[in-house]
Amino acid sequence: MAEFDAGELRLPLRVYIEDTDAGGIVYYVNYLKFMERARTEFMRAGGFGRGAVGDDGLMFVVTAAQVRYHAPARLDDELLACARLAEVGGASLTFEQRVLRGDDVLASARVEIACVAAVGLRPRRLPAALRDALQLHVRPPDSLGRSA
Amino acid sequence: MAEFDAGELRLPLRVYIEDTDAGGIVYYVNYLKFMERARTEFMRAGGFGRGAVGDDGLMFVVTAAQVRYHAPARLDDELLACARLAEVGGASLTFEQRVLRGDDVLASARVEIACVAAVGLRPRRLPAALRDALQLHVRPPDSLGRSA
Amino acid sequence: MAEFDAGELRLPLRVYIEDTDAGGIVYYVNYLKFMERARTEFMRAGGFGRGAVGDDGLMFVVTAAQVRYHAPARLDDELLACARLAEVGGASLTFEQRVLRGDDVLASARVEIACVAAVGLRPRRLPAALRDALQLHVRPPDSLGRSA
Amino acid sequence: MAEFDAGELRLPLRVYIEDTDAGGIVYYVNYLKFMERARTEFMRAGGFGRGAVGDDGLMFVVTAAQVRYHAPARLDDELLACARLAEVGGASLTFEQRVLRGDDVLASARVEIACVAAVGLRPRRLPAALRDALQLHVRPPDSLGRSA
Repeated sequence: MAEFDAGELRLPLRVYIEDTDAGGIVYYVNYLKFMERARTEFMRAGGFGRGAVGDDGLMFVVTAAQVRYHAPARLDDELLACARLAEVGGASLTFEQRVLRGDDVLASARVEIACVAAVGLRPRRLPAALRDALQLHVRPPDSLGRSA
Repeated sequence: MAEFDAGELRLPLRVYIEDTDAGGIVYYVNYLKFMERARTEFMRAGGFGRGAVGDDGLMFVVTAAQVRYHAPARLDDELLACARLAEVGGASLTFEQRVLRGDDVLASARVEIACVAAVGLRPRRLPAALRDALQLHVRPPDSLGRSA
Repeated sequence: MAEFDAGELRLPLRVYIEDTDAGGIVYYVNYLKFMERARTEFMRAGGFGRGAVGDDGLMFVVTAAQVRYHAPARLDDELLACARLAEVGGASLTFEQRVLRGDDVLASARVEIACVAAVGLRPRRLPAALRDALQLHVRPPDSLGRSA
Repeated sequence: MAEFDAGELRLPLRVYIEDTDAGGIVYYVNYLKFMERARTEFMRAGGFGRGAVGDDGLMFVVTAAQVRYHAPARLDDELLACARLAEVGGASLTFEQRVLRGDDVLASARVEIACVAAVGLRPRRLPAALRDALQLHVRPPDSLGRSA
């Protein structure tokens, strides 16, 4: 169901009542959940799912997020949660993310991820093979001809 | 802050925007979160917190819940989440719970909890000392002169 | 994506990190969210979505839920959230619901829904046309040859 | 319960199982909920609660958030969610926020809020009286002798 489009993973999702708040719109915190679903599908589709990484005793944790909200989503909306890998560092990944409704960008974000030991949560370098494989999926902003 | 009143733990809490849905009221699923907070404080106040139980390699899991919704809570409401221990079985606990706004019962529930091994999640008998201590906190419905 | 199977709506869904808790399994409260997604898709697929009902100034609210937890779901699991309409009353609906992983029933529930006025939330009779249409979708437990 | 300390609102809160994820720590998205609780209490304590603002047909929405995660919170932790008003613009507010466990800063954020019409959600200038009153609560970063 999730599909890559020019290096960007796009996951269709529906807005349910659980996602909304008393303002009648999607509770802004929940866009971060939608974005994480897209990152998870990105990693799974790329072959970097928990099985691949967990065998090395590693896990990924979010260390920073910058989110911008442009327009609200509403109950029953059909959205696309999108994830694009912008950078691969020695022990970190950076994703550019968007939540779309049709052609409208409702929210956008830059999310930084650290690779850590599953036990103790201390930073660990990405295994070389994993890093090389991830590099093949990097799409810097310019390559898409648009800003995130 | 949480206080016992005739064997019932009462935890004050405030309704925040995170708790509401597009209907303008508290999302009904979230009353179960409020009720769990009250059970957690009940166990902590009674000396049965995670430290006490976890040392035996045990944990508690919810196996059944019957919830009734009587009236909606709204944004900014001050509520009381309440937990009363109704029964202690060989490997289970049963709580009667309420969410109050002033004298109004907004939701009520009967929640069944099983004692399980933390590894594998299979049912385990309550240690005798823990069971005896918990028995002292049981308040059957009649003793409060009201139905839950 | 959601499909009817012998009168039961079955919605595929994936378990994401947002759904789990520190026990390493799906937080039991979240099964109620999965079940609501299935009810929503049931109503949408049957032509009883918010558009159909909201035009009459009506909405549906949950008045009671009985949930049983049989086995835990885990991160990355692919589940089916299921909804079957068991009864249609004058001002209420009753759903039998299940969350499946393959052939295993992880959770089951009976959820009672009331029809209320969108303003004031007082009970209102189901419009006759809506009630007749819903009746065609009722599948009592016996007709499926299994218990919920 | 919430208290001001040198212009920073500090709200004590407890970590419950609902706040955690399968990593055994607080799900990082939920820090944004904790921070919103603190902003809500800041506005309430300052006399800028929903009653004060809603009478003018206005509401506040989050337009951007920059969050940094420094260390994980765990089940049963007692935290302080903190909110400090850093700037008041013509139609916006900026908060600096922290989540503390004792002296440790677990997460920090800069959250931008817009004043909008409750109907239609278009930007609206802050009423002059409200703006003047809010200005009295502004504490720029320097005045606290620390970075957020």
